[in-house]
Amino acid sequence: MKTTPKPTLRRLPTYLHLLYQLRDQGMENVSSTIIANALKLDATQVRKDIEYTNVIGKPKRGYSITELIHEIEKFLCWDQEKDMVIAGVGSLGTAILGYPDFREIGVRFIAGFDTDPEKIGSKIHNIEIYDINRLTDFIRESGVSFGAITVPGDRTQEIAEKMVAGGVTAIWNFTRTQLHLGKDIIVENARFMPSLAVLTRRVIEAQIMKEHPKD
Amino acid sequence: MKTTPKPTLRRLPTYLHLLYQLRDQGMENVSSTIIANALKLDATQVRKDIEYTNVIGKPKRGYSITELIHEIEKFLCWDQEKDMVIAGVGSLGTAILGYPDFREIGVRFIAGFDTDPEKIGSKIHNIEIYDINRLTDFIRESGVSFGAITVPGDRTQEIAEKMVAGGVTAIWNFTRTQLHLGKDIIVENARFMPSLAVLTRRVIEAQIMKEHPKD
Repeated sequence: MKTTPKPTLRRLPTYLHLLYQLRDQGMENVSSTIIANALKLDATQVRKDIEYTNVIGKPKRGYSITELIHEIEKFLCWDQEKDMVIAGVGSLGTAILGYPDFREIGVRFIAGFDTDPEKIGSKIHNIEIYDINRLTDFIRESGVSFGAITVPGDRTQEIAEKMVAGGVTAIWNFTRTQLHLGKDIIVENARFMPSLAVLTRRVIEAQIMKEHPKD
Repeated sequence: MKTTPKPTLRRLPTYLHLLYQLRDQGMENVSSTIIANALKLDATQVRKDIEYTNVIGKPKRGYSITELIHEIEKFLCWDQEKDMVIAGVGSLGTAILGYPDFREIGVRFIAGFDTDPEKIGSKIHNIEIYDINRLTDFIRESGVSFGAITVPGDRTQEIAEKMVAGGVTAIWNFTRTQLHLGKDIIVENARFMPSLAVLTRRVIEAQIMKEHPKD
């Protein structure tokens, strides 16, 4: 089996979002060219990305929208319920717990963990907040396998290890700390900085292009 | 001039974060192999990424850490102050305004905008919140060129156009809406979904590999 390239995986949710819109507009089929134009991508790239999901477009008609939605959701495991806990419910953690789109794709936060006595025992966006010392036990008892981390940097590695000790196998890391965990543990870093790097560099590149259009 | 590939740009902040740590530990030089091992990347990839910033490593000694930090910061425009406004100060907008790391890289939020009368006139993380109807005028008067958007989906395009009308040229879009703006406007989408797609797919891939190790 081939591992799917990260850029492909990162584009699939965008396709999915567009496909929902097209379906809601009553469309039944869509070509890679239409998808590419709507999302300002290259049609060949779109076709290659979709190939990973094993959906085959038909000549002239393109892809069946319902089928493509179904297969992308399945491919990403977005058609199944996935319980998740979150460690750290400061302003970012709170924003994540309140983010409405996660429910749509099967992510259900079942608990939050923090060190702040004022937060422990309370509910944030209707999700119970527990003492972070209970993290490992809670995970072991609930059998949850996804954990998100938004704690301050210096505690990130420790918290991740506590999650793994309880049985978490997939960590969504919102901190800047590079985690070092066993090779069976899947870690995905969700950070603002990579996106900001693209934005600020593109601004510089646009300025250079404007000043030296022939380069 | 070559446009820098997005995956390269997305990795540069991670290098930078590691380089700060190495510098603080008293190191003066670093090889691409050390960087690659620390970040679980391929050393050739690291060398290629760094080549874009025009820093040349020396045989045996590798890169000068101070020089590399300086050049990556310059390359990303992170060595200069960049004012930014944000439209939408719900839980995500509030988290962004309070995110401590933006100041380090020269991003300064100078105002927030919202429709909520309770928020208008107040301060969030010490940043003044204004009526969203003042967005275009505020941008025109302040000369700010960066705008972040976290408003609900159906108003995203309208808000982006208001920003552009005031003079914003670079938009950091946190919503799922695909923006359609003039070709001179730089848009970078910062979304949770692409990252979550990588996480959930990698979990499936790990399961498949476990069940069919020979594939």
